[in-house]
Amino acid sequence: MIPIPPVKALVFDVFGTVVDWRSSIIRELEAFGRERHLSADWTALADAWRAGYQPAMDRVRNGEIAWTVIDDLHRATLETLLPRFGVTGLSEADKDHLNKAWHRLDPWPDAVAGLARLKLRYIIGTLSNGNVALLLNMAKHAGLPWDMIFSAELARAYKPAPESYRSVPAFLRGEPGEVMLVAAHNNDLVAAAREGLKTGFVARPTEYGPHQVRDFKAEHAFDVVARDFVHLAELMGA
Amino acid sequence: MIPIPPVKALVFDVFGTVVDWRSSIIRELEAFGRERHLSADWTALADAWRAGYQPAMDRVRNGEIAWTVIDDLHRATLETLLPRFGVTGLSEADKDHLNKAWHRLDPWPDAVAGLARLKLRYIIGTLSNGNVALLLNMAKHAGLPWDMIFSAELARAYKPAPESYRSVPAFLRGEPGEVMLVAAHNNDLVAAAREGLKTGFVARPTEYGPHQVRDFKAEHAFDVVARDFVHLAELMGA
Repeated sequence: MIPIPPVKALVFDVFGTVVDWRSSIIRELEAFGRERHLSADWTALADAWRAGYQPAMDRVRNGEIAWTVIDDLHRATLETLLPRFGVTGLSEADKDHLNKAWHRLDPWPDAVAGLARLKLRYIIGTLSNGNVALLLNMAKHAGLPWDMIFSAELARAYKPAPESYRSVPAFLRGEPGEVMLVAAHNNDLVAAAREGLKTGFVARPTEYGPHQVRDFKAEHAFDVVARDFVHLAELMGA
Repeated sequence: MIPIPPVKALVFDVFGTVVDWRSSIIRELEAFGRERHLSADWTALADAWRAGYQPAMDRVRNGEIAWTVIDDLHRATLETLLPRFGVTGLSEADKDHLNKAWHRLDPWPDAVAGLARLKLRYIIGTLSNGNVALLLNMAKHAGLPWDMIFSAELARAYKPAPESYRSVPAFLRGEPGEVMLVAAHNNDLVAAAREGLKTGFVARPTEYGPHQVRDFKAEHAFDVVARDFVHLAELMGA
């Protein structure tokens, strides 16, 4: 029996860890295409959109552009991808609607049940590079029972910047070791551990569909490794 | 029938509006006194502690001291008051425990039921001068079902500074008029309206006990005036 890490709060990476962004974005794009009688490789567009995510944040991280929230980075990426995928003639409202597909992502099947249990014993929150509005709208859409939305937007620093992880114990006025980051991504957890946070790994082996090449399992000695969020709740005594 | 203001989010002043700080603090101080066999005028100490709240924030507002969260302002006020009320010999842990009484405030009887209804239709959050940790711990203690903790700490500006009110529509990426502040204090709502927020007044005529001298009723043309939070939910169609 592994002892329960004595944390007060669990914060969660969101894209991929809590929600299945890929299926959700493909579904949203396909629905839009059907409604507008547009055809395109929507699956490839979804993958390309997500592939633009880290490079867009890199422009902020390396100081090439000023602080910019994910909603705006998503939108800029979308603008470059639409013509490349042969999707033209969309109105501003259309593009806003598509961009807000990132606010309407569906949770993995175990996410809400696991979070509801964890919430009874711990403060639960996001710790995402997504902006506050995106994460709040997603919580309402998906029924995610967060106590708090922690976001890179509050620290104005994208993970894996140290400030993004440090911001959570700072807001909670506690020690880093009183906070656990839960993520499906080894590199996120390694960066969190470096700042003193506890770590919980939950594999999401279908996050990238057939393109998944990493994060099939925990590659480091994380504090907790769970099969899903319900298992995580069990391991955390919740 | 007054039309329902078309807002997406309701944010709430907390001390006095959502929670009955005075009864709660008196109860906490009395319990501490009984346990330690200390006698003092605990009611007067509670009132003096709260009377130090605005002057302490004023020192931040006027730049006399750097940004300081309410937990630390509460603690500094407590340190000056304890000897004045004849309470001496407390340990650091004792004073921490007393200071965190502000994290354990009880809600007004209608608060949780009204918020639960409003949450079904709206984003609901705090907009308090209390810091994030205080508001989060209070939410867990009192069962307040916030979607988000907005705080002066996020804007680093105490109400009624314009930035504190503006921070909410900015985080939500919406218009000020899509956000309603709910408060039991006329001056808070007047300041919010100046920044374009909608306003909801709920009287809490016993907030200050026998010392209440204002805010018995709405003194301006606020968008909604409700008897309590359940009535507010009804008026907001929730």
